[in-house]
Amino acid sequence: MTSGSPEQLTYLSGPVLVIGTGLLGASAALGLRALGLSVGLRDASPTAQRVAVDLGAGVAVPPGAAFAPELVIVATPPDVAAAVVSGALREFPQATVIDIASVKASILRALLADEALGETELSRYVGAHPMAGRERSGPVAARGELFYSAPWIVVPHAGSSAAAVRVAKAAGADLGASVTQMDAEEHDRSVALISHFPQVASSLLASRLLDAPGAALALAGNGLRDTTRIAASDPALWIQILSHNAPAIVPILHGLREDLDRLIGTLEAPEAAGAALDLAQLLSEGNQGQARIPGKHGAPPQSFATVGVIVDDKPGQIARLLSDIGEAGINIEDLRMEHSAGYQVGLVEIQVIPGRRDELEGTLSALNWKVVQ
Amino acid sequence: MTSGSPEQLTYLSGPVLVIGTGLLGASAALGLRALGLSVGLRDASPTAQRVAVDLGAGVAVPPGAAFAPELVIVATPPDVAAAVVSGALREFPQATVIDIASVKASILRALLADEALGETELSRYVGAHPMAGRERSGPVAARGELFYSAPWIVVPHAGSSAAAVRVAKAAGADLGASVTQMDAEEHDRSVALISHFPQVASSLLASRLLDAPGAALALAGNGLRDTTRIAASDPALWIQILSHNAPAIVPILHGLREDLDRLIGTLEAPEAAGAALDLAQLLSEGNQGQARIPGKHGAPPQSFATVGVIVDDKPGQIARLLSDIGEAGINIEDLRMEHSAGYQVGLVEIQVIPGRRDELEGTLSALNWKVVQ
Repeated sequence: MTSGSPEQLTYLSGPVLVIGTGLLGASAALGLRALGLSVGLRDASPTAQRVAVDLGAGVAVPPGAAFAPELVIVATPPDVAAAVVSGALREFPQATVIDIASVKASILRALLADEALGETELSRYVGAHPMAGRERSGPVAARGELFYSAPWIVVPHAGSSAAAVRVAKAAGADLGASVTQMDAEEHDRSVALISHFPQVASSLLASRLLDAPGAALALAGNGLRDTTRIAASDPALWIQILSHNAPAIVPILHGLREDLDRLIGTLEAPEAAGAALDLAQLLSEGNQGQARIPGKHGAPPQSFATVGVIVDDKPGQIARLLSDIGEAGINIEDLRMEHSAGYQVGLVEIQVIPGRRDELEGTLSALNWKVVQ
Repeated sequence: MTSGSPEQLTYLSGPVLVIGTGLLGASAALGLRALGLSVGLRDASPTAQRVAVDLGAGVAVPPGAAFAPELVIVATPPDVAAAVVSGALREFPQATVIDIASVKASILRALLADEALGETELSRYVGAHPMAGRERSGPVAARGELFYSAPWIVVPHAGSSAAAVRVAKAAGADLGASVTQMDAEEHDRSVALISHFPQVASSLLASRLLDAPGAALALAGNGLRDTTRIAASDPALWIQILSHNAPAIVPILHGLREDLDRLIGTLEAPEAAGAALDLAQLLSEGNQGQARIPGKHGAPPQSFATVGVIVDDKPGQIARLLSDIGEAGINIEDLRMEHSAGYQVGLVEIQVIPGRRDELEGTLSALNWKVVQ
């Protein structure tokens, strides 16, 4: 660990060059600048680059400028990432170069096939994937804290040097992320399953609503809202992700199609022998799959107890509720708000560890809150 | 409107007989009792019935007892609802009889085919579907407020009398629900799309996680959590719902399969001409479908602005945050907590109307909250 500034100890020494100053690149730059590291910026769009400079994310480093980065972070869209990484490996012969695109195998394949790169250049390349990013995009939305507590997956290839892997991990650690390591195939299979597949499933589900009668949609509850929320994602980015990771996504979709075909067969003859058992199996597999998702803070999956409270839809009501819970010394594990059409009240669902539910219900009832479950 | 008690004006006069004292039946009974109405209870399970009586939901009314209800609420599982309704229509010749199962056409078909029932009996039957209910079941979980602000769909058939429809609506209104009306086919198609289909899709999605490596699951974010949350639902209840509403669900699943086949074809040749356009269309249809889901309180769909705040995972932190927001007079439209593996901090995402985002960000930053977007 070296000292990047008088105030903050950092794993990186700097300087760092960020190529691509969209949301992720500018956020990484801001986060590293805040630690006192020297940061250079470069973007194919002069406007995006100027905005990032104006935000204080770093100084502009045009191609050919005298700049000797310890680390180059390539934060471009996936379809140009390999070409930009290749250029950076050649332009900065001392630097570790990482890209932070959300697909890894296709970029690695392109680099390994790149005749301009030798083993020495390639040893300085390490893939990375910070699983952060919000619905907004562009440098204006950037925040140095974007990577706080998010996974930062470091993806070395067989030829990556230990030194380069260390630098790739250091960047994640300095940005406050939770650093893990996978190879490119494992990474792509993992994100296909836990990120790309849910995105596709949500889009497929929401597509069915296109022609839905308004009276049906008016009945929408949290089930529909939850399952379709990510269907609102930006198509432009997802076309690239899905195209680049197609080989990892397709087998999952084949599995879905098999289950779907079996389900359709069952529901087309719901009175047939075995139909109820088939349905039970599908639903039970869904139960079991859902239960495997880890809980908060990487803890084992845990069922929290839910307490529902009816509140008026006015400023300060929820604060007052949570203040009452805080004063009782009960920690809230999760919290959701539920609204229904036509009423100016909402249901707040508070999740606590099961052993404290009764206490919480008693406390809230005693304070005249409308506890509903 | 008639007066059911000195304290509360009610639409119903009572008495009301609730048959089936599980979560929904016992909740309805408690809610009506709280309004001062006379409520009788009956359940095939002596234990469930005794618990409901002990909870103060009403008095036991065994078959043959002298009891002349204005309304009988049949709150049994869907597979016995028609038989219980038929029995109640004959046992109580003056009563309106409603069932509150979440499927309607199959129950109506069974009643219309029931040779023990004439037109006069059938004129007193009206279907209903309160869209409420939580993950817990049984009378112990019952709360009189369960139906507050939830949709209460009244489903008359061609032969229902106006008087019976009025009583079915009165029950929903007295329980604080939001009363609407549909016919059985429209109801079943609507709930197939906005409730049963998301349930099935979520189960299918979560089933894919059965064999997922733990390292992949450790990367799970809110996208996966949201899309699979309802996959945790109770299989026993859903087998009945899906079996009974199969005719309305199957066409939606055929539509899903067509989209899925097209998507698989596209991703199997992601470099083919038109592949990007196909993906763009799928994702954009998902965007549009999602955008059709109405906003809070039945308002038009609205995009709220999101402000993210990093908080420590300690009691009282969120209360302090929301108290600061309440004091600034800013109303919270929605609120979510996001956790990541390995960190004892959480991200609270606060949704407000877009015009107040900047003010909220300024206010919170000035109070030293870590605003991240």
